[in-house]
Amino acid sequence: MKLKNNLSTENGWQIRENKFNEDQIVITGSNFMIGNGYLGYRGTSAEWGADEYVGCIVTDTYDMADGKWRELCNAPNALYTKLYLEGELVSEFEGKINDYQREINLKHGLYNRKLNWSANNGASVQLDVEKFASYDNLHLVPMEYTFEVQEDTEVTLITGIDGQVWDLNGQHLKDHELIVEDDLTVIKAVTGESNIELDVAEALEIVGAKPKSEEIIKEEKRILRQLKFDLAAGEQVTLKKVMSVYSSNDLANPFEAATRDAKTAIEAGYDKLKEVHQTKWDQVWEVSDIKVDGDLEAQTLLRFNLYHNTICTPAHSDKLPIGARGLSCQAYQGSAFWDQEIFNMPMFLYTRPELAKNILKYRYHTLDGARKKAKDLGYYGAYYAWVSGKSGEELCPDFFFENVLTGRKIRNHFNDWQIHVSPDIAYAVWQYYQATGDWEFIEDYGAEIVFEIAQFLVAHAYFKKDKNRYEFIRLLGPDEYHENVDNNAFTNYQAQYALDKAVTIYEKLQDTAPQKLIKLLGSLGLGEEDIDNWREMVELIYLPQPDEETLLIEQFDGYFDLEDVTPKEVESRLKDPHEYLGWPVGVTVRTQVSKQADVVQLLCMHNSFDEEVMKANYEYYEPRCEHGSSLSPSSHSIVASKVGNTDEAYKHLMKSATVDLYNTNKAIHGGTFIGGIHTAACGGTWQAIVKGFAGLEVKTEGISFDPILPEEWDELEFNLKYNYNDLELEITDEQLVINSVVKNKDAIEVKVNDEVKIIKPGEEVVFSLCS
Amino acid sequence: MKLKNNLSTENGWQIRENKFNEDQIVITGSNFMIGNGYLGYRGTSAEWGADEYVGCIVTDTYDMADGKWRELCNAPNALYTKLYLEGELVSEFEGKINDYQREINLKHGLYNRKLNWSANNGASVQLDVEKFASYDNLHLVPMEYTFEVQEDTEVTLITGIDGQVWDLNGQHLKDHELIVEDDLTVIKAVTGESNIELDVAEALEIVGAKPKSEEIIKEEKRILRQLKFDLAAGEQVTLKKVMSVYSSNDLANPFEAATRDAKTAIEAGYDKLKEVHQTKWDQVWEVSDIKVDGDLEAQTLLRFNLYHNTICTPAHSDKLPIGARGLSCQAYQGSAFWDQEIFNMPMFLYTRPELAKNILKYRYHTLDGARKKAKDLGYYGAYYAWVSGKSGEELCPDFFFENVLTGRKIRNHFNDWQIHVSPDIAYAVWQYYQATGDWEFIEDYGAEIVFEIAQFLVAHAYFKKDKNRYEFIRLLGPDEYHENVDNNAFTNYQAQYALDKAVTIYEKLQDTAPQKLIKLLGSLGLGEEDIDNWREMVELIYLPQPDEETLLIEQFDGYFDLEDVTPKEVESRLKDPHEYLGWPVGVTVRTQVSKQADVVQLLCMHNSFDEEVMKANYEYYEPRCEHGSSLSPSSHSIVASKVGNTDEAYKHLMKSATVDLYNTNKAIHGGTFIGGIHTAACGGTWQAIVKGFAGLEVKTEGISFDPILPEEWDELEFNLKYNYNDLELEITDEQLVINSVVKNKDAIEVKVNDEVKIIKPGEEVVFSLCS
Repeated sequence: MKLKNNLSTENGWQIRENKFNEDQIVITGSNFMIGNGYLGYRGTSAEWGADEYVGCIVTDTYDMADGKWRELCNAPNALYTKLYLEGELVSEFEGKINDYQREINLKHGLYNRKLNWSANNGASVQLDVEKFASYDNLHLVPMEYTFEVQEDTEVTLITGIDGQVWDLNGQHLKDHELIVEDDLTVIKAVTGESNIELDVAEALEIVGAKPKSEEIIKEEKRILRQLKFDLAAGEQVTLKKVMSVYSSNDLANPFEAATRDAKTAIEAGYDKLKEVHQTKWDQVWEVSDIKVDGDLEAQTLLRFNLYHNTICTPAHSDKLPIGARGLSCQAYQGSAFWDQEIFNMPMFLYTRPELAKNILKYRYHTLDGARKKAKDLGYYGAYYAWVSGKSGEELCPDFFFENVLTGRKIRNHFNDWQIHVSPDIAYAVWQYYQATGDWEFIEDYGAEIVFEIAQFLVAHAYFKKDKNRYEFIRLLGPDEYHENVDNNAFTNYQAQYALDKAVTIYEKLQDTAPQKLIKLLGSLGLGEEDIDNWREMVELIYLPQPDEETLLIEQFDGYFDLEDVTPKEVESRLKDPHEYLGWPVGVTVRTQVSKQADVVQLLCMHNSFDEEVMKANYEYYEPRCEHGSSLSPSSHSIVASKVGNTDEAYKHLMKSATVDLYNTNKAIHGGTFIGGIHTAACGGTWQAIVKGFAGLEVKTEGISFDPILPEEWDELEFNLKYNYNDLELEITDEQLVINSVVKNKDAIEVKVNDEVKIIKPGEEVVFSLCS
Repeated sequence: MKLKNNLSTENGWQIRENKFNEDQIVITGSNFMIGNGYLGYRGTSAEWGADEYVGCIVTDTYDMADGKWRELCNAPNALYTKLYLEGELVSEFEGKINDYQREINLKHGLYNRKLNWSANNGASVQLDVEKFASYDNLHLVPMEYTFEVQEDTEVTLITGIDGQVWDLNGQHLKDHELIVEDDLTVIKAVTGESNIELDVAEALEIVGAKPKSEEIIKEEKRILRQLKFDLAAGEQVTLKKVMSVYSSNDLANPFEAATRDAKTAIEAGYDKLKEVHQTKWDQVWEVSDIKVDGDLEAQTLLRFNLYHNTICTPAHSDKLPIGARGLSCQAYQGSAFWDQEIFNMPMFLYTRPELAKNILKYRYHTLDGARKKAKDLGYYGAYYAWVSGKSGEELCPDFFFENVLTGRKIRNHFNDWQIHVSPDIAYAVWQYYQATGDWEFIEDYGAEIVFEIAQFLVAHAYFKKDKNRYEFIRLLGPDEYHENVDNNAFTNYQAQYALDKAVTIYEKLQDTAPQKLIKLLGSLGLGEEDIDNWREMVELIYLPQPDEETLLIEQFDGYFDLEDVTPKEVESRLKDPHEYLGWPVGVTVRTQVSKQADVVQLLCMHNSFDEEVMKANYEYYEPRCEHGSSLSPSSHSIVASKVGNTDEAYKHLMKSATVDLYNTNKAIHGGTFIGGIHTAACGGTWQAIVKGFAGLEVKTEGISFDPILPEEWDELEFNLKYNYNDLELEITDEQLVINSVVKNKDAIEVKVNDEVKIIKPGEEVVFSLCS
């Protein structure tokens, strides 16, 4: 079926671009990318280079080239291949395209390109390319590149490694060594600041016609082979390549590993590599897939989002972040934001909980960075970085956006005022425990994280004696247009939640692991009086309540006094379309227009509010929200589902699911490149289904659902893991069927609307949804 | 002797402009103004109008014409007079100036203009004009206008009332009635928003040649007489005019009063009016003059400042503010800032304490405005207006400066974050008590002011539990370039001082007036627990201490982390010379460059710091201060004196004294007119002498001096009132002589350096200053 933006799908497992669009190569390079959590290879053409945003972004290669932006490296491109017919380069930018198709196969993570092309000199070729980022050996990107000429043609094939790569903020790799060893070519390079060795090896095999000549060409940062063929009409050549990437952060001798793997892989053969890779993907989809009957567009978009949330996640490590743009480019510094726990993680928590654990262990391993940030800013405890790389130290610079009217940099306070990231992580720790029952994790990792976050909140809070309450002052909430606000409702609720869980964990550890607790308290320098502080704060933190008449919760102190205008009106005040809208002088600052609606986010994450409160707040805040953040639509979708507004829920779901695919967000904003895959929206899309339409709520004592389907959908199917039990769900308008698989260990209490059932392993229960 | 800027003086009692400078008419109109605290009449020429910034600003006529700026009215100008020689207007802008002199006589508040002028048609005239704002009847401005033609000439004289006046922010007066009654002309008008009737009457007398014709001309808002003369060479005409001004805020029938006074005055005659006026001025100088021997420039400048601090002060009322630009123009809304108590008041406190009392009673009468402001911003108690008019409600708008690079208005937080104005007033109340011993004032007025300020500070403060201290958050200190700062040292010290005095007053009232105290506490809703709060805050307010090594006090939390650059370097970063330098995006914001140095101001007002601490801080902060405020130099001069640096003290004194006269400050800034007399600098200049060079310190138990004279000066003489005793002081390098006048009531303890003497009424004591 046709999708928007010149795209189509056959059966919901692939997305095809049917017409080449030169203007969209930044976006499509991200959308059609392949990846495996270790590296991300953009969905670009083999003959492209830096100007066309070719990129193979490799985890754990942080480097700072410009004194400001620490980011991941883009590896030399070992799939670089140019084809010339009688001297004319085969390229969508030149000649005549007879037939064109680019496809990302979501089921098996395969990139395909099919091009039937004629040169100006009359020669024609059929080109078929496939590549994938192996989920079996994460260091490999195999490619099969087949061409067949349609007339007798002299063909030149140039293939090798292109080290002249695109860099967002300064060149990271230097000292390129160009090596030819046996049949392999290798580029060894080193990062300029962090001194990481990054080595890329290329192995290749030619199948079909034999080249009449072969020559090695070394250029600056490039090592290439030039092969010439005299081909007869209908003659076919297949180039099989393997790119192998290792850094000195992976192991001691990356050169040896890269060459070894390239050699082994090329010997194993493309088909074998593909087969084991596909098996891994089958296992992923086995637990992760969501099926939507009756709406092939939604089905396809959903899988596109689950695919990208999967490939952006460094599942192989518990020491690396999920980048806000994953591995689709260098933007956002390959670093974790609060997005990681609140948007990316829930999908894994309920499908592949070991990945959720990795994510949280990453926060454990970066505690020292968070402690340093707290200390640098005059606090103590753990103030997690707004932009968190490998060490967890703050990577967010003071200045990044530019005031396009004055040419001056803008000081935004994401790095010092947006404190909610810390309680958000504590929130995720508790969500993890509720979903998995993994108390051992709490004992070994979670307690230290949550205790240190609690201490940071103590350090940050002010007590207002005359009001007998704790307040949080000078904040920046999720709505980033309003900085320097007090008692941001979202932040205050999250802080109170975090402190409450700190106390709960403390008390439970007294029972389950008193020796570990004593040791932990000792190492953190905590005493009973600190826990009393936490208890007092839990009681006395100011939590803005719904107004008795309007039921509205004020986003922050004084929000309702701000000018009440529409996002459209506010945008009409821009003097330049590229103006930054927020702090300190953007057009939204003194209005109620939000980038994303904090109170909706609060309702989305806290289940303690009545439906009428949710409804009143949703209806107030949604029209005032510009949805300038890709995080916004999924949260709005969830709350719209909760209040029974499926039309709005569906609209926001589709917006969340198409942020990248339909290119509805800005690729450049305030002078800063913010392209790439919005991985949080991918994770948010999963949540809009499971927490929104299916209405999942999880507590330590059981789970509940409150399903409501969009009109278009006949059936919704997905799997969930709860406490390491596998549940299979099927939802229609009439009923919710839950199957607890035979191998499960627990009987599970499930509540749907007001009906509670206990489901034993091997049982299937049916809840009627007809009221 | 010659002064800078084309000025001169004869004996230190007058300032003369010897060359007409068209470019400076905004400035000279202010410098040469006359006034009496009820009205201020700018030092402009009789034939000028709105385009030349003619103004007669009248107290207690607040009106808002543009929905934003509430300001005083400019009255119709009843001294308007044009002279034509054979049809050519006598004017410095036209024809030929043969001789020119404009003078302000500081001793008697007389404006003089002498012009010898030739028309292009050859006719010549000698014109002599004198006028004064009567200190006997504050509603009168008499003028004597004499001209003598040098050839036979046909002369036309147009004189009357010009109601087409200059208005800064919209036209305030409307419904002008043009009235001719007997020999008087009158304009009755009404303010558009506040509905105040403002009536101006003109009486006149012609002496010398008789006019050949006389005609009344009515134009829009103008009522004029046209007189024609055929004059022979050497023939002289004198026009004697009286302008009489009353508003319906003065009395019920301003028309009757204005006409009556005009009539009576013209009958009494110019010389008689001048005589009684001069007698009043003699009485003022009797107590206020400061004599400097050996430095005629400084002597003249000093008197210029004392003159302006006198005429800007509404001595006739205890319900009106001293305007930050006095009555020199409409800028700064004719309203009081903290300047009033901290800069203008001390001169009166020690020379005419009844005026200081008026000033503080004004703050008593405006308590309700301060209470309203506190309530509007979510506090309680008294948060005094940043810009305080008659009611004390906040007149400072949210937006006034403009970002000249973007054309957008800037939101400055003078009206909601600059809290120090409230404790500054409490500070002044206590200074008043210390200097006068007037406890009755405290009982009747001061206690309520200080208690309500204490309550506001309670409402504003945050308690930091983990540090066991009170903090003040989100402040704007006197250094207005740095907004949104925490624990501004000046503010915190002032707040602690205010609370300490609240407790002291409470405790003393328990003895002296227990019934009044009970009544006051009842009316304010205060109980013993509130006084305990104050006591606790006095103990626990965070007062930034001098660093042990550097001795530096940090201006606010994080100040030392800001970029350390010079004011010159910072100014080089301007893209437009009219850019506002401060919050939120000005070039100083992220640097240590201050508009005025808060810590120097702190040292200037609190005597609890060692000389070495003062020295270290002065030497650190002064070079980082842009002196962008006219308040800055006098405070720097005082602290430089305290640390023995007379060269710096003298430099800053001269800067303070010449802010207006030598036109060293900007008349337009950030798009806003801020011209007019900087009255705070006038009051600050007095303090630089008496608190700086003489080193006066006053405590309840006595006074002390620490004199140090600039090299240029032979002797410094001035009078002081302390506890209603008159002291006459003479200071040389060798000695300080204090004479306690015979009529005094008390023996006074005076300390100079470490020597303490008791001076009885009628005694003269000599302190040797040779060490």
